[in-house]
Amino acid sequence: MPPLQIIGFLESCYQRKFGTPRQPQLAPSASARLRILPEFEPLHSLEGLEEFSHIWLLSWFHLNTNKMFHPKIHPPRLQGGKIGIFASRSPHRPNPIGLSLAKLERIEGDTIYLSGIDLISGTPVLDIKPYVAESDFAADSVAGWVGRAAFPELKIVFSEQALLEIESIDLSGKLNFKQLIADTLRHDPRNARDNTQMKDGRTLYFALWNHDVDFSVQGDTATVLRIRRSPYPAKY
Amino acid sequence: MPPLQIIGFLESCYQRKFGTPRQPQLAPSASARLRILPEFEPLHSLEGLEEFSHIWLLSWFHLNTNKMFHPKIHPPRLQGGKIGIFASRSPHRPNPIGLSLAKLERIEGDTIYLSGIDLISGTPVLDIKPYVAESDFAADSVAGWVGRAAFPELKIVFSEQALLEIESIDLSGKLNFKQLIADTLRHDPRNARDNTQMKDGRTLYFALWNHDVDFSVQGDTATVLRIRRSPYPAKY
Repeated sequence: MPPLQIIGFLESCYQRKFGTPRQPQLAPSASARLRILPEFEPLHSLEGLEEFSHIWLLSWFHLNTNKMFHPKIHPPRLQGGKIGIFASRSPHRPNPIGLSLAKLERIEGDTIYLSGIDLISGTPVLDIKPYVAESDFAADSVAGWVGRAAFPELKIVFSEQALLEIESIDLSGKLNFKQLIADTLRHDPRNARDNTQMKDGRTLYFALWNHDVDFSVQGDTATVLRIRRSPYPAKY
Repeated sequence: MPPLQIIGFLESCYQRKFGTPRQPQLAPSASARLRILPEFEPLHSLEGLEEFSHIWLLSWFHLNTNKMFHPKIHPPRLQGGKIGIFASRSPHRPNPIGLSLAKLERIEGDTIYLSGIDLISGTPVLDIKPYVAESDFAADSVAGWVGRAAFPELKIVFSEQALLEIESIDLSGKLNFKQLIADTLRHDPRNARDNTQMKDGRTLYFALWNHDVDFSVQGDTATVLRIRRSPYPAKY
């Protein structure tokens, strides 16, 4: 098989692994853009795509660190339980290719604007395919262990300070930063097997565009503490 | 990026490109099996998958012959019209990776039994992922040009001879051969741009398991003429 080609690199709101949603559609306001590289002639190769409401992204899990094949993994939902790798959507697969459904917002020239994404900024993209319900929708589907292990949703509270800081952020009206924080936190980004992260009241942060968001969790409530300008700003 | 690994080769009812459905789910009775190679430890790596009703197959379009990148292609539905490659599900992509939804019938040891497939026998498989509606289902999706260009369905008629031959085929009760022929022919396997194939009344054939199926099309009706034992039988 010939080597894979990267058709473009995703620029998304997520700058760190921590906080990046585990699956697409969990954070509807999570946005990204994908510029198709000139050698793939985007003005021709994207023609007709703008009429679709959703697309598939095939991407490369470039931040995987483990080199060994493990036939079973610990998915975050199972809180310590194990499952076969092929019964999971874990990135640690024999071929680390991700499959993400994204909402297509618009196309401008060589650039595709997306929302609902679950990919970290910088992800290499291998393919785009239009979502076609007659081929891609499974009626009466049953989702095995995933259907029985819903993520508990956190309640989200904003501190006075965080609300003031959010108001002062100039994002040219392009996105609702408060909504994006809530969407991202709601599904609890913490790893249930990491005792440090799980310690009640501990301050943690994730990075959205060029801002870091400090928060802490007490029981089932996440409090957004403050928003800081990131020392490593995103290019977007 | 490291090279891709093949996790197994699909054995399907389709022995030739011609007749293989253009998308999954078009031929619900189209069946296949996939044996996961021993190095991927199927007895562990498949654990939990049996509880899902549907899976995604990522596969390699190993029979692609064109080596050049073409930013636009002629999809069969458009009868001569062109569309951007990324607005299509054509196999002729920068990375020739297929995405197919399949119904999971059962798992026996290292072997997964599937139906509704659109892949030719011998296809290398790169990944299996469980179908999870909360991530993979797009509500209110719009399918652009695909939604406006449905394939015309053919009416299917069986000759007396074909019906007798179907009755005499011993497939150990495993599948309904007549249904499979009808499912496969209904969406018209012919290429609308191939004048030889499109000639009214011309005898053509496709191959299902170890049988060749002769048929001809007159107007909107396909007649199944006869079933022949294939000189190149499938292993299954």
